[in-house]
Amino acid sequence: MSQVTMYTENLPNIPWQEKPTDCPGPVWRYSENPIIRRNPLPGVARIFNSAVIPYQGEFIGVFRGEQINGVPQLYLGYSKDAIHWTYEKEKIAFVNEKGESYMPRYAYDPRLIKVEDTYYIIWCTDFYGAALGLAKTNDFKTFIRLENPFIPFNRNGVMFPRKINGNFVLLSRPSDSGHTPFGDVFVSESPDLVYWGKHRHVMTRGYNQWWQSLKIGGGAAPIETSEGWLLFYHGVIGTCNGYVYSMGAAILDIDNPSIVKYRSGNFILTPEMDYEEKGFVANVVFPCAALTDAASGKIAIYYGAADSYVGLAFTTVDEIVTYIIENHVANGDDNTIGIL
Amino acid sequence: MSQVTMYTENLPNIPWQEKPTDCPGPVWRYSENPIIRRNPLPGVARIFNSAVIPYQGEFIGVFRGEQINGVPQLYLGYSKDAIHWTYEKEKIAFVNEKGESYMPRYAYDPRLIKVEDTYYIIWCTDFYGAALGLAKTNDFKTFIRLENPFIPFNRNGVMFPRKINGNFVLLSRPSDSGHTPFGDVFVSESPDLVYWGKHRHVMTRGYNQWWQSLKIGGGAAPIETSEGWLLFYHGVIGTCNGYVYSMGAAILDIDNPSIVKYRSGNFILTPEMDYEEKGFVANVVFPCAALTDAASGKIAIYYGAADSYVGLAFTTVDEIVTYIIENHVANGDDNTIGIL
Repeated sequence: MSQVTMYTENLPNIPWQEKPTDCPGPVWRYSENPIIRRNPLPGVARIFNSAVIPYQGEFIGVFRGEQINGVPQLYLGYSKDAIHWTYEKEKIAFVNEKGESYMPRYAYDPRLIKVEDTYYIIWCTDFYGAALGLAKTNDFKTFIRLENPFIPFNRNGVMFPRKINGNFVLLSRPSDSGHTPFGDVFVSESPDLVYWGKHRHVMTRGYNQWWQSLKIGGGAAPIETSEGWLLFYHGVIGTCNGYVYSMGAAILDIDNPSIVKYRSGNFILTPEMDYEEKGFVANVVFPCAALTDAASGKIAIYYGAADSYVGLAFTTVDEIVTYIIENHVANGDDNTIGIL
Repeated sequence: MSQVTMYTENLPNIPWQEKPTDCPGPVWRYSENPIIRRNPLPGVARIFNSAVIPYQGEFIGVFRGEQINGVPQLYLGYSKDAIHWTYEKEKIAFVNEKGESYMPRYAYDPRLIKVEDTYYIIWCTDFYGAALGLAKTNDFKTFIRLENPFIPFNRNGVMFPRKINGNFVLLSRPSDSGHTPFGDVFVSESPDLVYWGKHRHVMTRGYNQWWQSLKIGGGAAPIETSEGWLLFYHGVIGTCNGYVYSMGAAILDIDNPSIVKYRSGNFILTPEMDYEEKGFVANVVFPCAALTDAASGKIAIYYGAADSYVGLAFTTVDEIVTYIIENHVANGDDNTIGIL
């Protein structure tokens, strides 16, 4: 029995392995990682930074597929065990409200969230610079693009899995249109997915925790728990030889997610394995999704590895929430004066 | 009689001088420029980049006042002739909807727009980086701050003087939080000034017109005319010794201001005078406001000069609209591929 309650579905069929006895932290990798390897389908060199969700007793995924022309698009995949995947050969065909083709020039780092009876995809798209794209589907056959939530430049849009105070709620990370050597997480609300506002700052990069000292960005859709919204996110340090992306975790207030209740000062996963340290972009662990089983407290986290693979990692809600609380550091807002 | 109609008030008392015979372009300077000089009030070193509007038969202004600690705030001023100003000694005291103090840490480059019966101030404020602040007043005594329209980073928010298709409409320029070596103009809509959306790209920097090749940004509130919305804006080139800010002009579609009908490929004013070429920031001509007299077609443009002074310049709606149409260049959207 779990002491911290997750207000999510019971999904006894999510991937799972028990914690190895030699695991030093609160999150452990799947022994058969990476679960998605290079050249997963014709014309796609790499799949990574992708999202999965339960659907009709099985699982469905929206994948960042790097085409062999180097341009990312989104691909649909299906799985019975959420580990072994089959893919649609053609990229997702987005349409506008009239049913006319409305394709992004590029699309990457999707998140996939169910709110009420509808599934939403949020990704990074082209809008005279990097910005958030948003689409909805009810059947994973027709994907209707909605208004872009924000003007550029923005990445890492992560929607909450239910409305809060009657509004849709979206985390995002203002950016530049390049490699963005800065970045905090903000939250915004919308009554209708057309107009967005009530923007609030949530979390600053962690100036005193070097692994997340350059920038941070939301990862998996927040998980509703009895302690608040459990958020897996990424934190980045800039080294002399490039960025290093680790995984962090925080708990946001359940009614006002601009309030950080607890935030781990330590990363919970950092590039250590061959498939995380080497690849198209070395040293990247980038969470985009999580599956949960409310009854057992099990959590399976999906993360991109080195912009080349998809990895799977596990924790339990008790273990991760306890870890976050025990390793809590203040949000660090006092340290933001330098960027005002 | 004017051939192009301005759908604005009749204001026969706006500042005016006839065009000098030796003026090479469509806009000419006031002979007594600058109209606001250094140390305009105690504790304020410079006023520039400021907005004026008619009010109760006279004029009122919201001024960017650079305090002697170097931090800009907004100051109120009054004038009978819109040339000679008296100022409130204290910076504008913003409050929230409950009447509690809600001061920006800094505030600069205000625009002042009347929509229906309310006056709105938009400025650049601190929101974990440069962003737009928004406030309203009906009496220029109580200034109520509203929600920030956007997450960072953004500058040069310019509201239209009436709703379009039932919504408030706002131009803005996505930026970084520094000196921003890029920038296009976007337009956004809001039904309620709380939530914003339907973001559209309006104008790219003008790659083939070097004076505006680095970035552009809205200036005075658009002026409604029989040809469309007349927009005075600023365009910037990056030289080896710094940025140079000139004034440009365009005409936007009256019902859909994301469509540029005409845009002058030439600047209409560029730093030439001592007070424009020298100062706290050399080589800046930065329009923020315009007064118009519908009956005569006269337009008086207020612009910041060298981040140190306020200058005044004149044109007529016939002259400037004719000039824009005759010197029209395509919007240049085809040239934006490099930043996608």
